Parts: sequence; structure tokens; C-alpha cells
Amino acid sequence: MGDLRKDPTRGQWVLVRPAGGSPLVGELCPFCPGHEALTPPEVAAYRKEGAAADGPGWSVRVIPEADPYFRIELDLAREGVGMYDKISPRGATELIVESPRHEDTAATMGEAQWEQVLWMYAERIRDLKGDLAIRDILITRRHRQLGARISHPYSRLVAIPIIFDEVRRKLTEAREYYQYKRRCVYCDILRQETAEAARVIQETAHFVALVPYAARAPHEAWILPRQHACAYEASLTPESASDLALLLGGYFRTLRGSLGDPPFEMTLYTAPNRASKVLPGEWATIGEDYHWHLEVIPQPDRLTRVGGIYVTETPPEEAARHLRENWG
Amino acid sequence: MGDLRKDPTRGQWVLVRPAGGSPLVGELCPFCPGHEALTPPEVAAYRKEGAAADGPGWSVRVIPEADPYFRIELDLAREGVGMYDKISPRGATELIVESPRHEDTAATMGEAQWEQVLWMYAERIRDLKGDLAIRDILITRRHRQLGARISHPYSRLVAIPIIFDEVRRKLTEAREYYQYKRRCVYCDILRQETAEAARVIQETAHFVALVPYAARAPHEAWILPRQHACAYEASLTPESASDLALLLGGYFRTLRGSLGDPPFEMTLYTAPNRASKVLPGEWATIGEDYHWHLEVIPQPDRLTRVGGIYVTETPPEEAARHLRENWG
Repeated sequence: MGDLRKDPTRGQWVLVRPAGGSPLVGELCPFCPGHEALTPPEVAAYRKEGAAADGPGWSVRVIPEADPYFRIELDLAREGVGMYDKISPRGATELIVESPRHEDTAATMGEAQWEQVLWMYAERIRDLKGDLAIRDILITRRHRQLGARISHPYSRLVAIPIIFDEVRRKLTEAREYYQYKRRCVYCDILRQETAEAARVIQETAHFVALVPYAARAPHEAWILPRQHACAYEASLTPESASDLALLLGGYFRTLRGSLGDPPFEMTLYTAPNRASKVLPGEWATIGEDYHWHLEVIPQPDRLTRVGGIYVTETPPEEAARHLRENWG
Repeated sequence: MGDLRKDPTRGQWVLVRPAGGSPLVGELCPFCPGHEALTPPEVAAYRKEGAAADGPGWSVRVIPEADPYFRIELDLAREGVGMYDKISPRGATELIVESPRHEDTAATMGEAQWEQVLWMYAERIRDLKGDLAIRDILITRRHRQLGARISHPYSRLVAIPIIFDEVRRKLTEAREYYQYKRRCVYCDILRQETAEAARVIQETAHFVALVPYAARAPHEAWILPRQHACAYEASLTPESASDLALLLGGYFRTLRGSLGDPPFEMTLYTAPNRASKVLPGEWATIGEDYHWHLEVIPQPDRLTRVGGIYVTETPPEEAARHLRENWG
């Protein structure tokens, strides 16, 4: 099953596990309707009324990963190994199949399809946060990445018994900013970016899409909700979901249309599971100082780093202008 | 020239600069003896007595990178841009050509050659730390990495006006550990690993090479000096340099001989420039709680991460045994 081991010099967790029997992908796509028997039984789905589970008739379908990194049936065990710490990989690794159409991509999925995916994200996060052993959840969505075996469109949800490194970092910075200024750093970014406009890609009633001031990749985009809220799953409304679906579709069509359909990775950052308080009070201010958002990094395999510092050779202002002027 | 821009949500610095005119590499290797005119004038070299600078006769030669990320001639300027922070990329990017022999690799360079390289690392770090605008220095050494244009063996030194992200993280963890236990975390690792032996690769009079408990990559190795010291450049002695040269040679020959000569990246972690105190007292305890060391990651391009958590499928204990039993 493996362990989550903590590197005591970095405070970073590493999953050490036996070499995975990656599920063999035959000629049949296991994510296509009619092939439901090729996947583990589904966790959730939106399907036509009357259609039976694990059969066709669905529009979005969620299944556990066949060789999961984290498993819901494990006990949460924390252990010391001399000076070191380890935890059992209790959690969940789920795949959200975004469309029944094999050839769909983030750019071709219409607004209605994206909307269903966004609702399913919220539903799965809400459900998993009911499990108090789960502290944090990330959803990532990749397109045309190196080594991908399945081209059918899907997102991956990972739920774990610790806080993700990147999330801890964001929470810590947001808290320090808030303690100093009594304002949310993301709300301040929204104010400054919409006033300055140079890095804004698109504004809608509910969201602002922008290239961040310190973009790590050319044409990186962040999507921030105008309304301050720390938890995605608790703040999605019919209006904002349809607004966000439209915005995502536009951005992905722009990547495809004017930037050569690059590989990308999208990550949904929402607040950790506040019901699961391991250190009481640790996250007491998340409601005020954290702000859910989406980040999309095009060409994540080509990020340039020198001594760990990202190097971007397309100024964010220029990237934003290009995306605005070629908006799909 | 570009700016170092700070991402206020992660506290991470990104270098945004105009697209670099990467120096054209023609048919002649610019790092070979006799081709010194193809590089910028040298910064330092070990050469035969009487041999003139920027001509042949050297055994190790240091040159500024032709299109440097950081430049020593810039003023250090800190600026606010609304809510954001930026700094000029004041610093240095130097290439340490490790051998006059084009076909040398980390595995073929003999002990005497590695020793000279190790002394040059120390000399360049000492020299650059005399510049109070430089806060931190990393040396990285890559082998057969994707996209490498020059196969002649060299290391890269990067000196910057801020603390590297990875170093800040290590300093912070080491300080917290020290504050809690009054012991250096690296000294504790040395004690536990040598007692337990399962993850030790080799022990010498001055060093221990081990696979870390939470290794991010199969066959990752750390080399820790037994003697507690935060600064590499101040603690190298003729005995320890020769010991380390022997150990590095052995490890790199083992990678080549029994693991198919994989690409790798080595990083030298030494204390930041303590003379350059931007926040007085911030690093007051580095002397007690930090401990210089080397890290080598084989196959850095193939690290597996799920939601940012590294996944290793070769248990560190098994990797250490393999390296011990096949030691070159």
C-alpha cells in the first residue's frame, strides 16, 4: 500500500509505494459509453433518468482510479519511525470523465458540458469533505500531457489526509498578508488588476481571468471569482457556474486557436477540509483570508527554472494582450 | 534586463525577462582548450604556472554565462508596483568548466579532477559572498539533461539577491527543528541513518552518502558531512575534499555502471550569505541549525507527482542496497 513519508529537512511529504500495476489500456477506450465494465464501479454520475449505474446514458461519470495513489478504505495511521514521520495513504483518487464523447477536448466541450463538469467537481468535493480523515482535495485537469495513455477527456481528483504542499504555501502567504493588512490578498489582486487592466484577459459578471503578475509560464491564466469565498464547492451558483463554463470554454478555445493547442494543466484550489481540524484553530481564518480560484499553466513540461526560480520570457502584460485580442 | 517579480499568493519569485538570445553553439565546443575566445573572459581558473588567462593550459575554468539570468553589474533596486514587489536581477550566473577534456563525465573525471572542481566551488562561493548584494548561491551540476546543448562537463553557479525558495524552505524547517529539539536535523539524520544502516550507501571518514527516508526519485542520494558546519566554502579541508572527490566519483560510476547512465542533477546546498543581513538577526541561528550538503537526483525529468506530492516506486531501502552492492 505504501506510506506517506515526511522529509524532515523540507517538511514535504512523499508517497513511497510499490511499483504500480498501471492498468493496461487495450484498444477499447475504458471511458467511452458502453465500456463501463472496463472501469471500477462508478462513484457518481449524471445520467438520463432511468439509466442504470455502470451502463451508458451518462453525461459525466466519476470512477475510482484503477491503481489509486490514495485509498478510502484504509485506516488513517500516523506513525513515528525513529525521528521520521509516516502516514498511511488514506484518501481517494478519482477520475471525473467529463464527456461521453471520446474526441471532446477542453476547447470543444460546450458551455452546457463544462457546467455539468463544474457541478460534479463541487459534488465530489462536498461528499469527500464529509470524511474527517480527509484534510485536503485538489482537482487537476490535463490536456495532451507527455505520457498520457488515455485521450478521452477527464479530470483527476486527489483527496489526502494532509495539506498539499502548494496549498499550505498559499494558505500561509494569504494568512500573513491578511494579518498584516486585514484584507484578502486575492481580493487585492482583483482590485489592482481590474483597475490596471494590463494583465486582464476577460472580465465577466462573476469572474476575472488574468495573467498573474509573476506568471511562471507564458500565457498562464488565473480565474478568480469576484465574490470573496474560500470554498469552491459551497459558493457555486447556477449563475456563476454558467458564467465560469463560458469563460473556461473561451480560454481553452483561445489556447487552441491562437497558441497551437499546447498541453496544459488546470488546478482548482479550494479551502482544505475545515471540518477535519487536526490542529484546532490552525485554519480559523481561512474563511477571511483564503479565496478559491483556478490556475491554468500551458506547457507545464517546459517551465524553465534556474536554481528553482521560474524564468518567463513572455511578459505577462504581452501574454494577456495576446489572449484578449485572440479571444475564442 | 528583466525583473524578479514576487507572486504574493505563494511568496515565490519569478524572473521575467526578454526572450534570451541563447548563444549559438557552432561546431566548435566553446569550452574546449584552444577555444577560449568563444566564451566571455574568464572569472577564475586553475592553470599551469605561466599560462596566460583566456588561453589553454587550464584544468578548471570559470566563465560568466553568455546570456546570464543574473548580472553583477546591475544595481540592486527594490520597487513596489502597486501591491506587488520587484527586484532587479542583480547577481551572477557562472559556468564552471570542470575539465579540459571534452569527453569527460562525472563518472570518468578522476579523484584529482573532482578535487579541483570542489575547491573551485568553494573559491567562487567565497568570492561572491564578499558582495553584500548577494544573499544566496546555488551550484547545480547536470548530466545528460534534456535540451542540453553542450556536452563538455560543467557546473552552473547562480548567485541572487534573495534566498532561493528551496533554501528558505530548508532553513525554516531546520530552524523549527532546532528550536524544538536544540539539535540540528541533519546531525540527527546522520545519527539515525548510520545506526540503522538500511539507507546508507557509503560511509567515509568525513562523509555519509545515503538515500533519504522520503526520497523523491529512485536512487536519489544525499551526501552529508559528518562534521556539523553550515557553510561548505568555509569547511572544506584537504582531507575532506579528497574524501568527497572519491565518494562522488564512486557514486557517479555506480549510476553509470549499474543504472544505465541516467541523467542526473546535483545541487550543493550551503548557507546563504550571512554577511548580507537584510533582516537583521533573521538567520542568527544558521550556524547551529543548518548543515551544508549535496543532493543528487537521478532522472529529474521523470519525477512523478500527484497533486504536487512526489511518488517513488523504488523503496529507499532497496535503492540504497542496490547502490551499495554495485558500488563503482
